[in-house]
Amino acid sequence: MIDNLMEKIVSLCKRRGFIFPGSEIYGGLNSFWDFGPLGVEMKNNIKNRWWKKFVQERGDVLGLDSALILPPRVFEASGHLKEFFDPLVECKSCHERFRTDILESDKEGKYICQKCGGNDFTLPKNFNLMLKTFLGPAEENANAAYLRPETAQGIFLNFKNILDSSHKKLPLGVAQIGKAFRNEITPGNFIFRTREFEQMEIEYFFNKPKKDEDWQEYFEDWRKAMKEWIKDCGIKNVYELDVPEGNRAHYSKKTIDFEFDYPFGRKELYGLAYRADYDLKRHSEFSGQDLGLADENGEKSIPHVIEPSLGVERTMLAALCSAYEEEMAPTGEGGEEKRVFLRLPRWLAPIKVAILPLSKKEELLKRALEIYENLRFSFVCEYDETQSIGKRYRRQDEIGTPFCVTVDFESLEDQAVTVRERDSMKQERVKIGELKEYLEEKSSL
Amino acid sequence: MIDNLMEKIVSLCKRRGFIFPGSEIYGGLNSFWDFGPLGVEMKNNIKNRWWKKFVQERGDVLGLDSALILPPRVFEASGHLKEFFDPLVECKSCHERFRTDILESDKEGKYICQKCGGNDFTLPKNFNLMLKTFLGPAEENANAAYLRPETAQGIFLNFKNILDSSHKKLPLGVAQIGKAFRNEITPGNFIFRTREFEQMEIEYFFNKPKKDEDWQEYFEDWRKAMKEWIKDCGIKNVYELDVPEGNRAHYSKKTIDFEFDYPFGRKELYGLAYRADYDLKRHSEFSGQDLGLADENGEKSIPHVIEPSLGVERTMLAALCSAYEEEMAPTGEGGEEKRVFLRLPRWLAPIKVAILPLSKKEELLKRALEIYENLRFSFVCEYDETQSIGKRYRRQDEIGTPFCVTVDFESLEDQAVTVRERDSMKQERVKIGELKEYLEEKSSL
Repeated sequence: MIDNLMEKIVSLCKRRGFIFPGSEIYGGLNSFWDFGPLGVEMKNNIKNRWWKKFVQERGDVLGLDSALILPPRVFEASGHLKEFFDPLVECKSCHERFRTDILESDKEGKYICQKCGGNDFTLPKNFNLMLKTFLGPAEENANAAYLRPETAQGIFLNFKNILDSSHKKLPLGVAQIGKAFRNEITPGNFIFRTREFEQMEIEYFFNKPKKDEDWQEYFEDWRKAMKEWIKDCGIKNVYELDVPEGNRAHYSKKTIDFEFDYPFGRKELYGLAYRADYDLKRHSEFSGQDLGLADENGEKSIPHVIEPSLGVERTMLAALCSAYEEEMAPTGEGGEEKRVFLRLPRWLAPIKVAILPLSKKEELLKRALEIYENLRFSFVCEYDETQSIGKRYRRQDEIGTPFCVTVDFESLEDQAVTVRERDSMKQERVKIGELKEYLEEKSSL
Repeated sequence: MIDNLMEKIVSLCKRRGFIFPGSEIYGGLNSFWDFGPLGVEMKNNIKNRWWKKFVQERGDVLGLDSALILPPRVFEASGHLKEFFDPLVECKSCHERFRTDILESDKEGKYICQKCGGNDFTLPKNFNLMLKTFLGPAEENANAAYLRPETAQGIFLNFKNILDSSHKKLPLGVAQIGKAFRNEITPGNFIFRTREFEQMEIEYFFNKPKKDEDWQEYFEDWRKAMKEWIKDCGIKNVYELDVPEGNRAHYSKKTIDFEFDYPFGRKELYGLAYRADYDLKRHSEFSGQDLGLADENGEKSIPHVIEPSLGVERTMLAALCSAYEEEMAPTGEGGEEKRVFLRLPRWLAPIKVAILPLSKKEELLKRALEIYENLRFSFVCEYDETQSIGKRYRRQDEIGTPFCVTVDFESLEDQAVTVRERDSMKQERVKIGELKEYLEEKSSL
């Protein structure tokens, strides 16, 4: 692995406009991040492709966009108010609070405070991970509501409405992309664990299985689909972990964690869980609504569900870590220098084409702007006339732009431009009239 | 206007899968709505087209996606903690709370309670419209944070980071699409006024104007751009209201409200405001960061800003109201019946093409599925083999699908299908091999 990879990525993301610390001018709000001009394009590329692949191109998955704020009763039913806790202790000397699972112990087995080194702590207290707010005019418990800790619950709540309004039968998936919130005690590692994040989740509903093979087949289909998606994102070195019973979430009968080798260690990227009929059953009980369905034999039962759960920010982080490359490259003046570039899949790159006039000479700027005007409706383009061409190439390499189009003095004569490809740095001379088709063909590779 | 238009739209939206009441199985959470399979496609169509048009296709606007949760200091600076209030009174008999501006008065000028008819109220109390939450392990004021009431503040906070990381100069717009939250005392009118909603906002920054014409020119450009967008969405009967000084938000020097004739009255659709240097100046003062910039003469000043502000849900509601049509149409069996259809712009329709086998005969289903398989990677398609063809046409009309492709017995012979266009109901026979090109050409109209 590249030295100090995490620091380099955090720095590149800030410097180039991918990710800024949230509320930074006020000293930052711990664990909140803002996605800059390039970050938002990359995030949208991830979300739009996932949606097209898993919703629009499939006949057995429908979409949903449900509210972020939900009443307490939903989480009584889902078990989150009772089960979604981290054990928390407080250091008696410095009053810093910690999750017990991240604290190290001394020789006598006592926790050691990471801040002051003390080893006297309060007894562990369960700490609920949901963010609370109040609706209406008073901060009273009667008006309490929660920011959802997962997009999944909105899907279970709408299951009946979706079936009733569509002409669909089971098996049927319902997909949702959206924000979720967890009041993490110890967030950290850049955008890996944050209090506000975005999920892409599917609940894939099917009739109550008669035998284990019934659900195992769906589980296997989704395991494969997730592996293909990981490959599509250019994410390398992913490991599957079959999560043992004691470590699974309260609702899960089987879970596979897809783990990635982040610079800070091997940790969760995605999850695939068989939630069985846990959620629909609980919501049936708590709401009094019958969420059962008749199967092909007319037997009524609560559908079961398999859940592929993906984080947008983790996808982005793993893709950035996988794409970050350093190499020695010729300077063009006989020497060599270190080149940093993002070998992102072309569909994932925030900018597809950069149009760069070689100098600030008026005719060149004019010609380059014409080319930009002609391309910007077909590709996400950047026009840049600042700084030296070397510095501009370096910028485009660092943000993963697959193609740089350079307009030089010869362009005015031969009506052609130089197209430089990011990974190989190979340059090709392309007629301006054929440029759009050339880039369209290369981009779809 | 069509009779009971609002009730008809609310009912259609629920029945067909556009919009469901939030947390409905638990009796609903007042003023929260969930977007079903068709609603989320329509919402995404709005957001994606706006982003392409106002960010990706322009050289002078960059995107941003900043956190929903912000620290209190941001709203001390923005003025929201001090200014963003509604006056609230409580009826002394029934304890219901009301915004004073919606209450009617009796002959003596006393407010009348809408619930119990009483006229004895508490004195008006200012009620802040922001939703509060708490980060970290305890509900203490030291840990308070707010859900943003507008996406705009995230743009001001990141203004310097965006300029530093891009190679851009002023004038420069920064655009953001995302959720915002307002603790409305009296939400209502379906998705018109809700506590959780989505905005599309641009802050267009430019150097401090030397004379009024400087900002008026930008203001006029954005006024035109917004009018074009409204037309593009098929939204009819929009009126511009130049908001007089006393009614403008605390930060605004000039505001135009674009008002639409909703079934419940003429009310705000979009806003265009000249916020001058209010926000950046306040954030400079409160953060201690210098947010000034040197202009072309080297003179340093705080940039000014014009803000086109659009709501995603209001766009959707106005487009649905504008598109909803009822007409008498031939049944195909000599009679006539009422036909309901959504005359949505083709780009805005949630489903572009429906593939409908005429009967359940196996060869027809097989051929229809083949056609669906061939189209679903190019268009958002729906395959539907349930119910009679008449009922399926009615469904597609009601959800605004521009094209229905019917596969009949002749299709097996002549390798052609019937394409029915939504608005005209005209049917054309198209060769299966030419269907994709046919639909591509028609869709881009």
